[in-house]
Amino acid sequence: MSSIVHVALGERSYDILIRDGLLGQLPELLRPLKLGRCCAILTDATVSPRYATAVRDALTAAAWSVSVHTVPSGESSKSLSVAGKLYEELAEARLNRRSFVLALGGGVVGDLAGFIAATFLRGVDFVQVPTTLLAMVDSSVGGKVAINLPQGKNLVGAFYQPRIVVADTATLASLPEREFRAGVAEVIKYGVIYDAVLFAELERELPALMAKDAAVLGRVIARCCEIKADVVSKDERESGLREILNFGHTVGHAIEAVTEYGTYLHGEAIAIGMVAAARLSQKHGGLAEADVARIEALLRRAGFDLQPPDVSFDQLLDAMRSDKKARDGGLRFVLARRIGEVFSSDAVSESDIKEVLHVSRR
Amino acid sequence: MSSIVHVALGERSYDILIRDGLLGQLPELLRPLKLGRCCAILTDATVSPRYATAVRDALTAAAWSVSVHTVPSGESSKSLSVAGKLYEELAEARLNRRSFVLALGGGVVGDLAGFIAATFLRGVDFVQVPTTLLAMVDSSVGGKVAINLPQGKNLVGAFYQPRIVVADTATLASLPEREFRAGVAEVIKYGVIYDAVLFAELERELPALMAKDAAVLGRVIARCCEIKADVVSKDERESGLREILNFGHTVGHAIEAVTEYGTYLHGEAIAIGMVAAARLSQKHGGLAEADVARIEALLRRAGFDLQPPDVSFDQLLDAMRSDKKARDGGLRFVLARRIGEVFSSDAVSESDIKEVLHVSRR
Repeated sequence: MSSIVHVALGERSYDILIRDGLLGQLPELLRPLKLGRCCAILTDATVSPRYATAVRDALTAAAWSVSVHTVPSGESSKSLSVAGKLYEELAEARLNRRSFVLALGGGVVGDLAGFIAATFLRGVDFVQVPTTLLAMVDSSVGGKVAINLPQGKNLVGAFYQPRIVVADTATLASLPEREFRAGVAEVIKYGVIYDAVLFAELERELPALMAKDAAVLGRVIARCCEIKADVVSKDERESGLREILNFGHTVGHAIEAVTEYGTYLHGEAIAIGMVAAARLSQKHGGLAEADVARIEALLRRAGFDLQPPDVSFDQLLDAMRSDKKARDGGLRFVLARRIGEVFSSDAVSESDIKEVLHVSRR
Repeated sequence: MSSIVHVALGERSYDILIRDGLLGQLPELLRPLKLGRCCAILTDATVSPRYATAVRDALTAAAWSVSVHTVPSGESSKSLSVAGKLYEELAEARLNRRSFVLALGGGVVGDLAGFIAATFLRGVDFVQVPTTLLAMVDSSVGGKVAINLPQGKNLVGAFYQPRIVVADTATLASLPEREFRAGVAEVIKYGVIYDAVLFAELERELPALMAKDAAVLGRVIARCCEIKADVVSKDERESGLREILNFGHTVGHAIEAVTEYGTYLHGEAIAIGMVAAARLSQKHGGLAEADVARIEALLRRAGFDLQPPDVSFDQLLDAMRSDKKARDGGLRFVLARRIGEVFSSDAVSESDIKEVLHVSRR
């Protein structure tokens, strides 16, 4: 079964294609876009040996001129120095304004490649080929691209939409269990923020999803992309609605920052953050206690360790306050009224947060 | 006399204000824009001692929180390493998404500050306060922002419009003669590409313009901004019409590149390029010989040395071919049909170029 999700953004609209085996059809999928004939594939050291040669050969056979640029795996590649090296490689490869950048990999590769595409020659076409669950349901959709500074993550970037997203679910077979699970945290998030039916489906189908059942995987990923596409269409530049995508992220980001991004995968930190956000929602959003329990139970069944790290509350609070979304001083939370409906709130106090984290730690 | 030129770009529209003494009114001019209360002034070592303190104090008095960031003067500041240092300074200054970047200086400062504004926190508001003639009539208007790579100028950048451009013509009093003249080359260009009346006015009023007569200066700058605004409104991202702004630039850029940006100011190289383009226009565009002579005479009266540098033709040709606008291999020229009307052409041959440059060198 193949799914197409359309992201409606006027002249910046594009499709997300989701199916098992799409990588082999990349040339046919790209041809209607009338991209230039030079392509720079940007990938990382983990993904490159698995898929880069096949993608390059397929594009070369279809008469594209292709260069492959491989960066080290991991968050540290989202830096200005790696970006600078890539710019010089693209300039040496004589890419022109009609050339395009193809991101082949997970969130790090997509964010970095997107930033390069947004800025090289003042912007060239950009194609996303996500190979992780997290990238398929989240980072490859919506146009947020960025690199990190020593002072914080994603502090330099752009809103820059891809021309197409090609999600081949077959690439998830080689994804390590732990990384796959981390993606599931974001999948569960979509249920909580937007779709009670999806949430109930996840409660039913979690074993099949965790076993990477192709049908469930395709359906769930497509639904998550639909939700993100809907949110992004209504608020491309994150001036309002888009904020709801950050459910669980206020605490989650702080946990990642305090542990210096070395202990938790993004999804693992977000899982802990979602439990905190659910509990805060009970107090400030009217979320039923039974629904708090359902959210926590689903995350637990997915295999997440939901206990917050053993760090001081003040450290976490500091990290929350220095997040770029909180830079006007106040703390901002996305809270749930019920499963499937959330809102943004400034009403959460420090002691509220302390309390819910304390409950988790017992 | 005060002039307001509106740049019509939908939700990205803005005004260019031109008048003697506007710097002192900056707070009142910015207030209607509802910018955030933090401002980062980006300036260079030449402009900073003259104007940065006054601007900072005026904004501070109007309750803005202001930081000043000074980069070395000159093209070398349009680098990724200087940008990286600025990003870190802005992060340390805790700018948030509602903060704005104010470019105070010439083209280098405007291009660099615009690139920073376009990418810091995925884009913050941007204000242009140009202090050179070139920046007032050209680089501060139209949203092209960029930094350089070792491989070439402006290879990394964005299209990012300012919220307002405030051109205080009083700042031109302190501009060195040579830099002022270089700006006049672009002024003459606007006459050639778009406005025979402006060209004729320049023929009449050149002495007053060169003497920085306030009335002539204000009128001429406003007309140049109107022309650029009109062109940019019709083609924001340089997919067609905007190319006409590059009259004289194919040869001009090559001269700058071959002499490693150390011999000629941009306008000085463009002046030589315009003579070449005018002569090519006689052959390929039907420009009358008398009009070629008028263009050359006006540039000469403005004080330009119109003899091409003593470099080999092959070097120049190489540089023309590696310009990012020519990266598909062909050479592209903007040619004139008559003064006030130009078009883009692929018809110019290498021997045509050689011939016109040879004529100039005799």
